[in-house]
Amino acid sequence: MRDILPGEYRRRQYLTERFRGVYERYGFEPIDTPALERLDVLLGKGGEDNEKLIFKVQKRGASLERSLEERGELCDAGLRFDLTVPLARYYAEHRAELPRVFRRYHIAPVWRADRPARGRFREFYQCDVDILGTDSVAGEIEVIFATADALRAVGFTSFVVRLNDRRLLRSLLEAAGVPEALQQDAVVTLDKMDKVGVEGVAAELGQRGLPARAIELLSGLDVAGVVSASPAEGLERLRQELERLQADSGGASSAEAEAALSDLGTIVRNTSEANEGLDIVIDPLLARGMGYYTGPIFEIASEGVPFSLGGGGRFDGLIGRFGKENVKAVGFSIGFERVLTVMTERNMFPGDLGGLDAYVTVFEPTERVAAQKLARELRAAGLRTLVPVTSGGLKGQLKEANDRGARVALIVGPTEREQGVVQMKQMETGQAELVARAELTQRVVALVRGTG
Amino acid sequence: MRDILPGEYRRRQYLTERFRGVYERYGFEPIDTPALERLDVLLGKGGEDNEKLIFKVQKRGASLERSLEERGELCDAGLRFDLTVPLARYYAEHRAELPRVFRRYHIAPVWRADRPARGRFREFYQCDVDILGTDSVAGEIEVIFATADALRAVGFTSFVVRLNDRRLLRSLLEAAGVPEALQQDAVVTLDKMDKVGVEGVAAELGQRGLPARAIELLSGLDVAGVVSASPAEGLERLRQELERLQADSGGASSAEAEAALSDLGTIVRNTSEANEGLDIVIDPLLARGMGYYTGPIFEIASEGVPFSLGGGGRFDGLIGRFGKENVKAVGFSIGFERVLTVMTERNMFPGDLGGLDAYVTVFEPTERVAAQKLARELRAAGLRTLVPVTSGGLKGQLKEANDRGARVALIVGPTEREQGVVQMKQMETGQAELVARAELTQRVVALVRGTG
Repeated sequence: MRDILPGEYRRRQYLTERFRGVYERYGFEPIDTPALERLDVLLGKGGEDNEKLIFKVQKRGASLERSLEERGELCDAGLRFDLTVPLARYYAEHRAELPRVFRRYHIAPVWRADRPARGRFREFYQCDVDILGTDSVAGEIEVIFATADALRAVGFTSFVVRLNDRRLLRSLLEAAGVPEALQQDAVVTLDKMDKVGVEGVAAELGQRGLPARAIELLSGLDVAGVVSASPAEGLERLRQELERLQADSGGASSAEAEAALSDLGTIVRNTSEANEGLDIVIDPLLARGMGYYTGPIFEIASEGVPFSLGGGGRFDGLIGRFGKENVKAVGFSIGFERVLTVMTERNMFPGDLGGLDAYVTVFEPTERVAAQKLARELRAAGLRTLVPVTSGGLKGQLKEANDRGARVALIVGPTEREQGVVQMKQMETGQAELVARAELTQRVVALVRGTG
Repeated sequence: MRDILPGEYRRRQYLTERFRGVYERYGFEPIDTPALERLDVLLGKGGEDNEKLIFKVQKRGASLERSLEERGELCDAGLRFDLTVPLARYYAEHRAELPRVFRRYHIAPVWRADRPARGRFREFYQCDVDILGTDSVAGEIEVIFATADALRAVGFTSFVVRLNDRRLLRSLLEAAGVPEALQQDAVVTLDKMDKVGVEGVAAELGQRGLPARAIELLSGLDVAGVVSASPAEGLERLRQELERLQADSGGASSAEAEAALSDLGTIVRNTSEANEGLDIVIDPLLARGMGYYTGPIFEIASEGVPFSLGGGGRFDGLIGRFGKENVKAVGFSIGFERVLTVMTERNMFPGDLGGLDAYVTVFEPTERVAAQKLARELRAAGLRTLVPVTSGGLKGQLKEANDRGARVALIVGPTEREQGVVQMKQMETGQAELVARAELTQRVVALVRGTG
């Protein structure tokens, strides 16, 4: 767990506000859920894997004592470890109050009892957009566009969205004759094609117990050809690869794969025609870790960044688990902490986040009222203005003004007061001039806004 | 614990942004601390009272098993129950990285294992400004002004700041001969003067075991006279009351009381001369619950609201408890949840928080690309624009546009497309007109910004 110092807080705030601005422009709505959820909600069906992630909160008072006596469960709540499980619970609970198609964004902390490591924290932010209640591939288009625009809004310029579909991946593995139990292993191995080459992959697939014929078919897959083609052509090549495998294995073409190819085609067409600058790559081996995806899956990367900045996909089974009916859903998460790290390392934040506009000196306690009046005017004009709480010498106050990034220091000594002027000192250049008291606020505003 | 639906989220967001804006204009810096703190930090010295408030988080893995075996403590961390204890820990840890005088604000959730009740939640927001590292009463002035401006920024207009000082209160009770152990009780009783009158108060003071002479002296206190006077005069009257008691009891005037009167005088003078519209009332019986205050204490109230909207004061002993030296501190908290409730009940929020600017209809899947292009333009111009993810009939889409508070619906049918126009329908009036496609964004911007 970390403390957030002012400089980093402002960077986080900047990211949050920019992302929020984009999501709002896409019509996504903000929600929040409690940090604590019931343990049974967090664990869900088959949630044993999550159990080790959860910070559990102890029962209290009489129920705790009863549990201790009966050697029963001591905890009945835990800190949320992601924003998706709470969303499912939230949607089931509030469905009647929410629009039929619900677009929400959620930028908030989650907690995981992982062993801390470099870049991994036990409290960190997630940043999700999801559209619930529709199976239209237009949902995929909206979350992809929104995510790309969110990253654009904080200064990333060139993107690649890697695109695949769980249905295609399954069809491909089935056509190659990979038993269902080994499909996950096969994907992990195939993902190493870049590093270990065709032979390395074939060897590893063998070690993992794949049938020889399946290895032969998969090794022959022209992944590089699909990836390097234009997305429309990549889809066409992928279709051919799939047909080849299906013909080889004597399997029939699957309706599922056809639907997937059609959906990806729609995404590709809309992107190329309505979102110039957003490149799509069809990646037949993109798998995304989490088991819950059911349709298109995607990751977004920026040139020169060696890992993805976000990922998502369609997950039609998950959101309905606390309700009575199935709920279609598609979402895209930005790796908030990753983006923050990359942007910090690359100096992508504006330089003056949080710097003061003006610093009003106070040398004698008797000058405080005048300083407060001046500050009040400046603040009313929207300027970030500090009045030191301790009166003191010029040197110390100018140092504080400088440390806090003030654009100007305003000095009102007895002489200035008599003459009805204020000394305005620009901190960067050291340039000082006398400004009529009545014109001061206007002058400082012009200077700070860059119009003076 | 509560879920936050979009409408309420936006109200919270509005409050947070307004408060943040004011605090930034005062030169306060934002920080955050982890939700989880070590239990020994939360409990502190004499923190037994807090123990019942804390949601405790269980140890994990081997340390949990060891604790279970040895019947030791099962928890070593807990959720923060306020923002002040974490601030003290934070300041001790980061002192070297922070300015000598540190002004920080913190708007964040805290958790209390209270029994939930109307208006009381187990997860709720606190909103604090504090100035650490100075004993100058200028700190009090800054936090009072900032708090009043924060409340002004969300629409409250007339304020009263009730002002007292712990040193004065103590001097008063001492001069009246109230034993130290009974001083807290005495304050609680005196606070009921309005409700039960002088005789009621006297009776209760007797029941609580105060000496008869003390009761006589306190009952004679002209509280109403002080409260109803101008603040400068109120201070003068309070000084006289104090002197009368001290003379009666044969005690000497205390240096502590003198210092307090001088500090309050400075606050009053600065406020009356530099902050018109901010009324101060000297309230000799204002006590503020928490034991940790050491100097001036204050509460802020708005006309017509029967409870205070915030409170604070100087607490010079608390922040240093995790470090080696004493740290002077003064702060003011706004009751975030109270303000939210009052503003919601009184319709003080802007009406269009979160409403869409534009809704682009899509009747046929083939129209999606054109709709996406149009939306992209509008969004780039900063307009909140929804493209429905399901294509469908006009009626359903206009209903969605209406439900989401859209200012205009933009309709592009085949005829419109052929003619290079878009039908722009203003949702409030129903008025519709054809606008040239090339001029559309500009027209919608003008309409939404109220300049068209």
